[in-house]
Amino acid sequence: MGRDLSALFDPVSVAVVGASDDPAKYGHAIAAQAIRADGRRPVHLVNRRGGTVLGRTAAPSLTAIGEPVDLAVVSVPAAGFEDAVDEALRCGARAIVAITAGFAETGDAGRARQHAVAERVRAAGAVMVGPNCLGIADNTTDLFLASDTFTPGGIALLSQSGNLALELQLRFASHGLGFSRFVSLGNQADVTLVDLLADCARHEGTRAIAVYAEDFADGRAFAEAAAEAGKPVVLLTAGRGDASARSAQSHTGALTTSADVVTAACRDAGVELVATPRELAVGLAALNGGRRAAGRRVAVLTDGGGHGVIAADCVEAAGLTVPELREPTRQHLREALWEQSAVANPVDLAGMGEQDPGSYVKTVDALLAAEEVDAVLMTGYFGGYAAAEGGLGGGGTVLADGEQAAARLIAGRHRATAKPLVVQSMYPESPSCRTLAAAGIPVFAATEDAARALAATAPGTPRAGVLPLPRPALPLGESGYMETRRALEEAGLAFPVACEIHDEAGLLAVTEEFTGPYVLKALHLLHKSDAGGVALGLAGPGELLTAFREMHARLGAPSYSVEAMADLTDGIELIVGVNRDPHFGPVAMVGLGGVLAEALHDVAFTLAPVPADRALNLLRGLRTAALLDGVRGKPPVDVAAAAAAVETITAFAAAHPEIAELEVNPLLVRPRGVLALDSRAVLA
Amino acid sequence: MGRDLSALFDPVSVAVVGASDDPAKYGHAIAAQAIRADGRRPVHLVNRRGGTVLGRTAAPSLTAIGEPVDLAVVSVPAAGFEDAVDEALRCGARAIVAITAGFAETGDAGRARQHAVAERVRAAGAVMVGPNCLGIADNTTDLFLASDTFTPGGIALLSQSGNLALELQLRFASHGLGFSRFVSLGNQADVTLVDLLADCARHEGTRAIAVYAEDFADGRAFAEAAAEAGKPVVLLTAGRGDASARSAQSHTGALTTSADVVTAACRDAGVELVATPRELAVGLAALNGGRRAAGRRVAVLTDGGGHGVIAADCVEAAGLTVPELREPTRQHLREALWEQSAVANPVDLAGMGEQDPGSYVKTVDALLAAEEVDAVLMTGYFGGYAAAEGGLGGGGTVLADGEQAAARLIAGRHRATAKPLVVQSMYPESPSCRTLAAAGIPVFAATEDAARALAATAPGTPRAGVLPLPRPALPLGESGYMETRRALEEAGLAFPVACEIHDEAGLLAVTEEFTGPYVLKALHLLHKSDAGGVALGLAGPGELLTAFREMHARLGAPSYSVEAMADLTDGIELIVGVNRDPHFGPVAMVGLGGVLAEALHDVAFTLAPVPADRALNLLRGLRTAALLDGVRGKPPVDVAAAAAAVETITAFAAAHPEIAELEVNPLLVRPRGVLALDSRAVLA
Repeated sequence: MGRDLSALFDPVSVAVVGASDDPAKYGHAIAAQAIRADGRRPVHLVNRRGGTVLGRTAAPSLTAIGEPVDLAVVSVPAAGFEDAVDEALRCGARAIVAITAGFAETGDAGRARQHAVAERVRAAGAVMVGPNCLGIADNTTDLFLASDTFTPGGIALLSQSGNLALELQLRFASHGLGFSRFVSLGNQADVTLVDLLADCARHEGTRAIAVYAEDFADGRAFAEAAAEAGKPVVLLTAGRGDASARSAQSHTGALTTSADVVTAACRDAGVELVATPRELAVGLAALNGGRRAAGRRVAVLTDGGGHGVIAADCVEAAGLTVPELREPTRQHLREALWEQSAVANPVDLAGMGEQDPGSYVKTVDALLAAEEVDAVLMTGYFGGYAAAEGGLGGGGTVLADGEQAAARLIAGRHRATAKPLVVQSMYPESPSCRTLAAAGIPVFAATEDAARALAATAPGTPRAGVLPLPRPALPLGESGYMETRRALEEAGLAFPVACEIHDEAGLLAVTEEFTGPYVLKALHLLHKSDAGGVALGLAGPGELLTAFREMHARLGAPSYSVEAMADLTDGIELIVGVNRDPHFGPVAMVGLGGVLAEALHDVAFTLAPVPADRALNLLRGLRTAALLDGVRGKPPVDVAAAAAAVETITAFAAAHPEIAELEVNPLLVRPRGVLALDSRAVLA
Repeated sequence: MGRDLSALFDPVSVAVVGASDDPAKYGHAIAAQAIRADGRRPVHLVNRRGGTVLGRTAAPSLTAIGEPVDLAVVSVPAAGFEDAVDEALRCGARAIVAITAGFAETGDAGRARQHAVAERVRAAGAVMVGPNCLGIADNTTDLFLASDTFTPGGIALLSQSGNLALELQLRFASHGLGFSRFVSLGNQADVTLVDLLADCARHEGTRAIAVYAEDFADGRAFAEAAAEAGKPVVLLTAGRGDASARSAQSHTGALTTSADVVTAACRDAGVELVATPRELAVGLAALNGGRRAAGRRVAVLTDGGGHGVIAADCVEAAGLTVPELREPTRQHLREALWEQSAVANPVDLAGMGEQDPGSYVKTVDALLAAEEVDAVLMTGYFGGYAAAEGGLGGGGTVLADGEQAAARLIAGRHRATAKPLVVQSMYPESPSCRTLAAAGIPVFAATEDAARALAATAPGTPRAGVLPLPRPALPLGESGYMETRRALEEAGLAFPVACEIHDEAGLLAVTEEFTGPYVLKALHLLHKSDAGGVALGLAGPGELLTAFREMHARLGAPSYSVEAMADLTDGIELIVGVNRDPHFGPVAMVGLGGVLAEALHDVAFTLAPVPADRALNLLRGLRTAALLDGVRGKPPVDVAAAAAAVETITAFAAAHPEIAELEVNPLLVRPRGVLALDSRAVLA
């Protein structure tokens, strides 16, 4: 069920240690915010010099308050931090908000210090946010322990950056979005992103969770918590590039996880991953109303030319479709609109909107009602008829009333359906657009934002979910070629028959057991293929022996594997690997193998273990997936068997935490069945 | 040199035919604008009822004015359009701006009408914009013949949509951008986009040309004119999706050209192609100052966390790099900044900016001076120190003066260098940011816009240019397999030896001439390969004869080609094709051939003819280009020979306008040289 954070978000009493009258000190801003909620719970200000702060008597110490303190904000110089926390715990604090900086972000010594403090906090049964954090706020409990005011609303923001929180606050405002909670994550010495995510998932006042994080201490747990959250989670993260990784390390002391892994984890967990504050705000604006489109078919409506065409392109670029409307809808629109109006989709009022804003209403109505439409995008001039004075629109101010009336009617039609309606307007701040926005219709200035918002409401690929890690199996003792092969065979993966040999006598014995063509592999070499340690297609015992003599003279390997050569005709080679990420645990990679894999990097990632149905989706999503179905007269290959093999391989790797890397390459997928032709494991 | 449009943009006198006092009529808005420039040249208002319009006497007809009219705006009902134009020509008009709608956009009859009018205009030595246009404006000559006022500036806007022009005007304003000219293109019955582009290229008052176009009557000429413009051309176009093409056809009667072709033409011509008004404004804001970066290396500067990391990611996503700064620069920054500031890149002042805004100045200075930096992106809170009152920044209003002083100093540093500096700010409208913007430093609210702006200033791939079409060669009489092959061979493309045969006797004669292995192809079939009309790898005369008998019995083709089978070992198969686009002429396609081409669509487009050096760039730009260099121990193939073959093939196709489609597939590229293994031509 996660940790109890009730003392953090709804404490009985609060003390701000380090409260100050000096506006340059952070303890001043926090104290000023904290006392806003005086009526709700006692708020004590502590300044070691006593006297008054913000016009009220300050206690010289927590102890001097003379009564228990439930939550203590600690904003003191680093030298006094431990003492302040210890005193807070003695005074009964169940929650600490640690503002003080100078710990893990400065190096190993600081990390050790914060670790020791966190241990004492946990031993006392308390929780601590930070250190090196900017505070927290909970608008649902009137708790204001950050330096800024956050507009109330339904979004919980968990952020590793204070300035970004401010930018989001600015961006949210124009969409009518507000905050249920704000937590500055700081160094996460005790309370982690995962703890907070789980708590916000349970929090009634929170409808969606926005996260800005640069590092994922336990990324796996983050993905699991997000998958279970039951409400939208949008993640803004950085560090996909080299420069970001460099910066993230230098300024938070955190290891940045590779972009592929974060992307895969988010997709599995159903987290919407965004790259900028603007994308985050757009995504949340779209999700805020709670509407989801049933499909991906969008109707676009405009009044005059370019905007409709451009919006249609943007909608399609966002992965949605703009299908031609069906004849009944078009007939209906033909009757309602002008002769010159276009009714195919995009629908173009062609100037009728400026003469009669009611034509917008009729059209929105028809489009929201149309079976073949899942969502509607209205784009262009609406909002400007009232503002323009004899502009290109021509109608001027005479239209103001008509446009406002239309806006109210559109808001009503919107209320009467469950389909998403999104608006792009040249005049998003116009009274008519404000009327739409107030009715919960997202209004954007930029066409690409409106399209992205619609995409956020559309049904995505089914959430894969995050499977729990299996109980660890008995560890592999050795990771040699034969051992790994045998272990995978025991797990259910099919290999060609193989025998390990050490000399010519052994080789000849093998040729008695099975016939050629053969493959000969030198074992105990790091990269046997690169070293010339693999010979393929040896027709019979003679060729095999010749190859062995040549290879042994050249490499002198301690042993060799003689294997039956698989029939490669009509087969496709896949690569299946599992790497153990320090944050996200075992991560599977599936792709086309051989030369293609190298030249194209056509691979997909997902958290392991991977059930066969998810593996199937990954394979089908490869750019080269068409090859699986047999192009140029080749028969299709057994994708189901390939997916089952991915399940086998990834479940095996997930159950072996001692394996840092496991790779089956190639995995030969044939018209019927699969065969693992080579494998390799690296122990951690 | 293009057409003389001086009467259009700087007429001696103007008449507005259809001027009206009725604010619902377009002739009212235009007349109101036109008379603003009364002092510059005579402006006559014409209304067939005479009387007064806008308080001045209106002439009942153009003739009634009694003096020559240099430019006539015609805004009358469609029925009276021809008469009005004819009268204008009789009155000496050298330019017509035809507002009246109801022509090509309504169908063939309307198209015929506008064609006839345009013929008469040209016969009279005059020029006509429109019909179905919204007017023109030239701020450099005080010519105001559109319904709206356009802020003066250096950008010429040529637009097929009026509402989009208004949105651009709104978006330009916040970047301090304005217009030299505005032309509503209308139906382009006489004056075309190309004419206008060429004229704006010559126009001294125009620094950059922005185009919104949905169709390209003569796309080739557009590309040629843009390539020769000598100033930035930014094209906003639509119709990349199915829906847009549908809409564009229905509302302008224009054929939308396929996205691949438009993209290729723009890249060749050096035109920046954008998809939304926002992207257009961002691109122009970046180019407006005329600064170009010498390279792609960007230094990112922020004050506190997230913004720097996110900006670095955005910069890298935009195709630029964020390299680690060199030690001398880092040392310099270390001395200038706090201990906790990060100096690697992104540079993070880590709170110093709020204490001492001068630290921004020192850092910008050091970054602009650093050899390893081509451009600087400042991102985050700057602009907010003055605005915040004890916010997360903490400093509050005490910093206002310091921030403004810093902005002025940064503006000075910027002036002293030629490197681009771009700013993203949470507070783009703050006084400090306005100071930066006024100094020509582009300021954006969104990080992705700032990154895109920097990308616009970075050196792109070298402009390919648009080669003129060669003089047409003697047309191919027939497009049969042997004829096409022979023609390409004569043009210099190497093929394996081949002989056409009709029967077994002919076949046997061929085996005397060259030895196997052979290829046998049935000729005069539409898709010989799909029909089983190709047999490969026939070892000797016996196999060849057997294959011939089987194939002839099955297909009964009138003739066959017997060819020497090329050695495919170590070769890569390319596909090279040329299609003749109705707007852009011959367009070349180059890609990996065989199964890969089908599965990956890994192809590149460019206008034909294609010089070898451009072909080389295209091949190197393929996703699968690594295959050309020989992966997995294969030798690299002769890319130079492949590029030369592309030149040969595309020059041939360009010189044969009668060829609708030409394809060489596969073009076998070997470690030394190339060989065309099959080809196909379709005549128009």
